[in-house]
Amino acid sequence: MTTTEALTVRDQAARARASARVLRSLPTARKAAALGAIARELRAREAVILAANARDVQAAEQAGLPEPMVARLRLDAPALAAIARDVEAVAALPDPVGQTTPEEVQPSGIRVSRRRVPLGVLGVIYESRPNVTVDVAALALMSGNAAILRGGKETVHSNTALEEAIRAALTAEGLPGDAVQVIRDSARERMRELLRLDDLVDAIIPRGGAALHRYCVENATVPVIVGGIGVVHIYVDGSFTRVPEDVAKAAGIILNAKVQKPSACNALDTLLIHEAALPALPELVRPLLERGVVLRADPPALAALKAVGLEAASATETDYGTEFLALIASIRTVSGLEEALDFIAAHGNHTDVILTRDPAQAERFVADVDSAAVMVNASPRFNDGGQLGLGAEVAISTQKLHARGPMGLSELTTTKWVVVGEGQVRG
Amino acid sequence: MTTTEALTVRDQAARARASARVLRSLPTARKAAALGAIARELRAREAVILAANARDVQAAEQAGLPEPMVARLRLDAPALAAIARDVEAVAALPDPVGQTTPEEVQPSGIRVSRRRVPLGVLGVIYESRPNVTVDVAALALMSGNAAILRGGKETVHSNTALEEAIRAALTAEGLPGDAVQVIRDSARERMRELLRLDDLVDAIIPRGGAALHRYCVENATVPVIVGGIGVVHIYVDGSFTRVPEDVAKAAGIILNAKVQKPSACNALDTLLIHEAALPALPELVRPLLERGVVLRADPPALAALKAVGLEAASATETDYGTEFLALIASIRTVSGLEEALDFIAAHGNHTDVILTRDPAQAERFVADVDSAAVMVNASPRFNDGGQLGLGAEVAISTQKLHARGPMGLSELTTTKWVVVGEGQVRG
Repeated sequence: MTTTEALTVRDQAARARASARVLRSLPTARKAAALGAIARELRAREAVILAANARDVQAAEQAGLPEPMVARLRLDAPALAAIARDVEAVAALPDPVGQTTPEEVQPSGIRVSRRRVPLGVLGVIYESRPNVTVDVAALALMSGNAAILRGGKETVHSNTALEEAIRAALTAEGLPGDAVQVIRDSARERMRELLRLDDLVDAIIPRGGAALHRYCVENATVPVIVGGIGVVHIYVDGSFTRVPEDVAKAAGIILNAKVQKPSACNALDTLLIHEAALPALPELVRPLLERGVVLRADPPALAALKAVGLEAASATETDYGTEFLALIASIRTVSGLEEALDFIAAHGNHTDVILTRDPAQAERFVADVDSAAVMVNASPRFNDGGQLGLGAEVAISTQKLHARGPMGLSELTTTKWVVVGEGQVRG
Repeated sequence: MTTTEALTVRDQAARARASARVLRSLPTARKAAALGAIARELRAREAVILAANARDVQAAEQAGLPEPMVARLRLDAPALAAIARDVEAVAALPDPVGQTTPEEVQPSGIRVSRRRVPLGVLGVIYESRPNVTVDVAALALMSGNAAILRGGKETVHSNTALEEAIRAALTAEGLPGDAVQVIRDSARERMRELLRLDDLVDAIIPRGGAALHRYCVENATVPVIVGGIGVVHIYVDGSFTRVPEDVAKAAGIILNAKVQKPSACNALDTLLIHEAALPALPELVRPLLERGVVLRADPPALAALKAVGLEAASATETDYGTEFLALIASIRTVSGLEEALDFIAAHGNHTDVILTRDPAQAERFVADVDSAAVMVNASPRFNDGGQLGLGAEVAISTQKLHARGPMGLSELTTTKWVVVGEGQVRG
C-alpha cells in the first residue's frame, strides 16, 4: 500500500504539479544523480520487480492475450539490466534546461532573451511494455518534468513495482517522490480524466496504436502530441537501377526498411517505382519475398514480377495510404518524380525516402515532401531518436506543432521570455 | 459572388491545403512580392473596402452592439493605410523558412539536419477587428502558410472585401488565390467543423476572450494554440522602495502596466507588495487612483492606503487570479519573495514582473516563475511581438507546447528531419 493508492487522477496530477516546481530548477548534476539512484534501485529490486512482472504475465496468459502482447509484457533479468543501463545513458545526455539565447537589447532599452525550461507535467499513455514506464520516467526527470503514466491494465503489477523503485530512489535523493506516478486504475474513465486536466497537465504523449491516438485527440483538452502513426514510402528513381551495385544497394535499403522491424512505425509500407526502373523491380523485391513479405502491386509492377515468375497480389486502392505494421508492402508504378511527389502529398507524413543518383531529383524530393523525416539513399528505419543523434526518444511525433519526428529531451521543454529593464515603460 | 461562396468548410480547407503545397517552397522574394501586391490592392480598393465596412458598422449599430465593439469594427482611410503599411513591414521581416541546422554525421554515416518549413494550413478564429484578417494573412503567407479565417459575424462584409483584395493580389502574382480564405457563414457549427478538420488543418489559433479559447479547446481535434488569457502580477520587493527615485520608477511601471491599455492581456491584474514596502504603497498607487483605477486590497494594504486617505475596496479571494481587462487592480501583501513566488505559482502563467534592486532576488524570481514572460524592472506591457523583437505577432501563446509568448513568423513554422545517406541500412 503506497500513498497514491486512494488518490483520484486529479489528486495525482496536483501532486505531480507540486513536484514539477521542484524539478524545474534542479541543476543537471542532481537530475543525473537521481537517474543513477533509479538505476541502482532497479537492480537492487530485481527479484521484486520480476515477481510482479511474472504475475502480470501469468494473468495475461490466463486471459488469453495474444502471444506478441505477452512477449512485450515479459521482463527478465537481462531486460531489466538493459532498462537500468538505458536510465544511466539518459543521465549522460546534455541537459537542455537553462539554455538561454543571447540577450538582445530592444529599442526601448529592455534586454530580452529566451530561457529553455521544462514543460511541467507530462501525461504519458501507453500499452503493455513495462520498459516504457522507466524510459519515460528517466526522460521526463532528466528534462526537469514530472510525469503521470497510464500503462495498460495488463502491466499494473509491473508498473507498480517500477513506480515504487523510482519513488524510493527519488526520496533517497531528497527529491519529491510524486514526480513520477502511475495511474493504477486502468478504467478508461480514468484515462479520460487525465486527458481533461488542462489546468494541471501540460502535454499528453500517447504511445500506441492509431485508436489510442484518436481517442486522445477526440477527448483531450490538454494538448496532445500525436505520433508514431503514418505511412512510409520509398521512391525508386529511374537513375538508381542502371548499375548492379545500385540495384543491390536499393534492394538492401528496401529489405531493411520492411523486414528489420515490421511492427515499427518507420517500416516501409509503399514502394513507388519509376516506370523506367520496372525492369529492376524483381531484383529490388526478391529479398523481401525470400523473407516472406506479401507484395501487393499495381498492374505494371505486377506484370514485371509475374514475367520472371515472382509472387505478388493485385493491389487495391486501400493498399495505398495504409500502415501495414506487418510483412506486407504495396507497390505503385509512377511516371516520374512529379507523380511520386503527388502520391506522397496525398498519403505521406511520417518518413519518405528517395533512392536516386541524381542530386537535383534528391533536392526536389527533400524540398517538396512535407513529412517528419525525408531521406535520400538511406533506410527509413533511421527515423529514430537514437539513430538521428538525440540519444533517446520518448516518442516519434508526426504532427507539426511543437515537435516533429523523434522527441528527445529538448522536445520535452519549452521556453520562457526573460526581460530585464531599468524601469522602462511602454510608450 | 466569388468562387468560395458555396463551398463547405471542408472544401475550403482542402483548397487551402492544395495552396499550401505551392506556398511551402516559394522563395522569400516571391512571398514578399505577394505581400507588396496585397498592400497595393488594399490601397486601390479603399473605397470598396470602406463601403463594405460601413455596411458592417451600420448593421452593428442597428443591432445595438456595445460601442467598444463597434469601435473595434470601424475602418477609416488612415486605418486602412496603416494596415497596408503593416503588410509591407511583414514583407521586410527575415524569412524563417529554409533555415537548416548544421549537418551532423551520425555513427551510421548518415548526414542529419533539420530544415525549417511552414506549418501548412492555419485556422484562425477571431472576433470583430477586420485588421486581424489582413495581419494574419500577411504573417501566414510570409511564413509560407495558407490560412482559413473565421471572423465574427459582424465583420462579414469587411472580411469579404478584404479577402477579395488578397485573392486578387495573389492571383496577379501567379499564386493560388485560395491561400487565404474567409469562412463567411458565421454559424457556430461552421467554426466547429473547422476545429475538427485535423486531416487538413495543422493548427488552430484563436484570438479572443476566454470563452472562445475554451470552446476551441473543448471542441477541437486540430491542435489549438491557446493564448492571450492570463493574470499579470507585479511584485514590489522591499528593496525597491527605499529611495524616492525608485518609488517613482516603480509607480511609473505600475501605472503603465495598468492604464496604457487596460483591455490588453498583458495589463496588470494583481500587485504583490512586500510588507516592508507597505509605507511606499500610497505613492506607488496614487497615479492609478488619479486615472480612475479601482483598487481592491487585502487588510494590510487597505490599512496603508486608508491611513493616508486613499480610496480602496476590500479584496475578496476572487480578486486574485482574475484577469480584469478593465481599470481594476487587486493588491496583496506578502511576507517576502517566497510567498510571492507561491502566489504566482498558484495564479500566474502570462507575464510576471519583479521590481527590485537586488540581483539575487531578481534571479530567483526569474528562475522560479514559470510564465510565458518573466520581467525585472520593466512594464509587463512589453510582452508583445513588436516590443520583444519579433517584428509582428499573430497571437500571444500562454500554453507551453510549440510556442510560448508572442508568436512571430518563426512560430508559424515547424521543422522536418533531412537525412542523406549512401545506401546505409540500420544494423
